Amino acid sequence: MKKPLILVTNDDGITARGIKALIEVAQQLGDVIVVAPDSPRSGQGHAITLEIPLRLHKVDLFEGIEAYECSGTPVDCVKLAKNVLLKDRLPDLCVSGINHGSNASINIIYSGTMSAAMEASVEGVPSIGFSFLNYSHQADFSACKPFVKALMKNTLEKGMEQANLINVNIPNLPVEQIKGFRVCRAAEARWVEEFAEAQDPRGQKYYWLTGRFVNEDTKDDTDIWALEHGYISIVPAMHDLTNFPAIPKFKYLESLVADSSAMVG
Amino acid sequence: MKKPLILVTNDDGITARGIKALIEVAQQLGDVIVVAPDSPRSGQGHAITLEIPLRLHKVDLFEGIEAYECSGTPVDCVKLAKNVLLKDRLPDLCVSGINHGSNASINIIYSGTMSAAMEASVEGVPSIGFSFLNYSHQADFSACKPFVKALMKNTLEKGMEQANLINVNIPNLPVEQIKGFRVCRAAEARWVEEFAEAQDPRGQKYYWLTGRFVNEDTKDDTDIWALEHGYISIVPAMHDLTNFPAIPKFKYLESLVADSSAMVG
Repeated sequence: MKKPLILVTNDDGITARGIKALIEVAQQLGDVIVVAPDSPRSGQGHAITLEIPLRLHKVDLFEGIEAYECSGTPVDCVKLAKNVLLKDRLPDLCVSGINHGSNASINIIYSGTMSAAMEASVEGVPSIGFSFLNYSHQADFSACKPFVKALMKNTLEKGMEQANLINVNIPNLPVEQIKGFRVCRAAEARWVEEFAEAQDPRGQKYYWLTGRFVNEDTKDDTDIWALEHGYISIVPAMHDLTNFPAIPKFKYLESLVADSSAMVG
Repeated sequence: MKKPLILVTNDDGITARGIKALIEVAQQLGDVIVVAPDSPRSGQGHAITLEIPLRLHKVDLFEGIEAYECSGTPVDCVKLAKNVLLKDRLPDLCVSGINHGSNASINIIYSGTMSAAMEASVEGVPSIGFSFLNYSHQADFSACKPFVKALMKNTLEKGMEQANLINVNIPNLPVEQIKGFRVCRAAEARWVEEFAEAQDPRGQKYYWLTGRFVNEDTKDDTDIWALEHGYISIVPAMHDLTNFPAIPKFKYLESLVADSSAMVG
């Protein structure tokens, strides 16, 4: 039997601990190809590189594994994997991560990890983004691995007919304290942000983003609830941003006419 | 009566023609503040800047208008506007664009224009992303202005209770040939991509993204259909990526158990 082909990527960069853990699990399940950014690319969302050329270099970081580092974004990595490296073959599964830190709730829209997985899902590849609620570069991912393997194995066996993208977040707990999986919606939480304001060595002002995550969506069907109660959250996600229930409510806009006074000035 | 406050941003950069057209319309309707990238930031999606500090400089580009250029992404611009510049006051409306080129269909997920509008909508601000199907830096936006004004005026008067983000694309036609507005869903189209492969002056290989847009979703309720038939498309959009219909279908994953064989290797 032909082994499945698994594309592994991330947004923390190819030297991050999280991708190493993911590769170690993936190689137990199939043939693995790794294409990941050559430096940390957190918060890149669905950015793609249009204005400058991209570099792609083969690296010898993981024993027996074909791996490439890319100068672009996580989404660029997936596009290069598909179009340059794999050409005639779609992966059977794309896994992204394991991210150092949460991509639950609204974090998904900023997440390079999830955007890379989404990019593969747009091409019809069953795709999973994994994140671990531990922000340390030194994080120990061993508690994640048995759960990551169970989900990857299941996805390879059963596929993802109904939707081909899931956002998986893993609580920062010892393996024996993790209660299992919970399928949920993204909590309607948000960031309350500030910018740290300071001066550079030349006396010029700069701003640096900081903030705290606030969740007032306390129902028990959300990813935040699941994580706070010791579960791994699984949120089925999608790339179509159309707000379908809103379409009939906006239909009245079709009766608007052009405002010719706009031509003045 | 207090004039409404309108935040204007874009992804083509503060010197683009499209933002100038948008500002000219906005200043007919309210007090305007402009915060836009200091260089083109197309394809930035929902990227935010985390690893480096941001610069924000007041510029004197638009007569009588408070305007700032920012070193970051379109989403950074909106965050800086909200947190640093406006502090105690939310805008009554955020408009982003007018983008040089289409953000219809799947382009929304890559679009800095739409991500900036989405960022404002997350904060509860009624937000509109405008795009014009003309990719030229020299594009003439005059045909857009009467329609842009009608939509902005309506939004300021009626608000957007049911959803607070719309994606508006304008066909590249003379004003008298534009048939009006059509409220629709995003077409399920996609990019078929390739990378141009070449060598830099030092003989090192590089890749540059190229591609063509392919739409096989030919129903008459999509944005692509509307644009091809002379209408301005309006797609109500949202930031919650949860695939709600898929939740029950994935519930069976809750019975999966950890695969302890993953601890080996």
